[in-house]
Amino acid sequence: MGKREEILEAFRFRHACKQFDPHKKIAREDFDVILEAGRLSPSSFGFEPWRFVVIQNSLLRDKLRAVSWGAQTQLSTASHYVAILCYREGMRFDGDHVARMMRDVQGLPEDTANKKRERFALFQRENHLLDASRTLFDWAGKQAYIALGNMMTAAAYLGIDSCAIEGADLDASEAILAADGLTEDGKLGLSVMAAFGYRTKEPGQKTRQSMKEVVVWVT
Amino acid sequence: MGKREEILEAFRFRHACKQFDPHKKIAREDFDVILEAGRLSPSSFGFEPWRFVVIQNSLLRDKLRAVSWGAQTQLSTASHYVAILCYREGMRFDGDHVARMMRDVQGLPEDTANKKRERFALFQRENHLLDASRTLFDWAGKQAYIALGNMMTAAAYLGIDSCAIEGADLDASEAILAADGLTEDGKLGLSVMAAFGYRTKEPGQKTRQSMKEVVVWVT
Repeated sequence: MGKREEILEAFRFRHACKQFDPHKKIAREDFDVILEAGRLSPSSFGFEPWRFVVIQNSLLRDKLRAVSWGAQTQLSTASHYVAILCYREGMRFDGDHVARMMRDVQGLPEDTANKKRERFALFQRENHLLDASRTLFDWAGKQAYIALGNMMTAAAYLGIDSCAIEGADLDASEAILAADGLTEDGKLGLSVMAAFGYRTKEPGQKTRQSMKEVVVWVT
Repeated sequence: MGKREEILEAFRFRHACKQFDPHKKIAREDFDVILEAGRLSPSSFGFEPWRFVVIQNSLLRDKLRAVSWGAQTQLSTASHYVAILCYREGMRFDGDHVARMMRDVQGLPEDTANKKRERFALFQRENHLLDASRTLFDWAGKQAYIALGNMMTAAAYLGIDSCAIEGADLDASEAILAADGLTEDGKLGLSVMAAFGYRTKEPGQKTRQSMKEVVVWVT
């Protein structure tokens, strides 16, 4: 099989798996690859707004299940369940997460960091990201969805199933995570969740718009 | 090389490529894989909010370049340049794109579609997605970022470079696309863009938060 077919096979394999085999655990070495796919994902200005909280505790899973209509079977059967949190105000151009990223992770000298912060401020203003806290958090969340997609793709490449979870009362779910001390006192908010494991049955036929419907060429 | 290393290699290979070799074109068979990675991406309720507009026309690229400070070299050197558009009000529970997806793509009988629409309406209300047009569009855009991530990963797997582009006046860019008749009379908005091609030089060291910083286990 050539490289083109190899990667397409992963995209074809992936489906929204609702129920996992509760007896089949993902090997640690495989799950590390899934986490690494998230960690190495690109993000706007390289500011990595995310934190990946792997929820293996059954009490916490039960609490989340009470407010997650779309994850009833996933929460009780998934080998691994991940909540992707993102920084809220820390993602402002003058926010503490952004300052920490430039200083401690990107290792920028102070004058370079200041110039980057100015460009970033212009960018955030130009695209109205500072107009509302919700808008800023949604923008951070978009980066998290890149990581989410990459984690599901890495999983599928390894023959592991997954399901992205938006079907929950996210405010209530976030409050549950906050009560367990997982949000840095509200600095982090809940963006999206994902379940990983092994399917119990084959999925139905994948439905998609055709290439002709979703692609337009301007030549 | 095992499967774990194979997929990790793609994530390590990818970087935000600013300048591409203008003489090196992506083979049609490879670019089809990149588009297919986008097309097969998951989306909330399977409603595929996206359209992929491949901009190869140099006049249109020049117009976009005038309002895209973050894509100056990408627009002039990329082998392929993609704008990802998403439906705006069509993504409401009672929107026309959602109706078309359930009827023509997912092939749901009318009573099943009605039940799904009700659940979808509850979901959109529960997470306040209908409070503002901007919020609804940002939510659609999150799905587009899954496709964006998958397209860049598929590219990297094939040894092709990419760069996600947020660094632009998106309103002005959207107006340019609208003037060329690419937004279905404003039904589609511009979510994000991406350039694809081949690097001219090796990137610097990738900077990332450590595993310990981004992952929390709740066991």
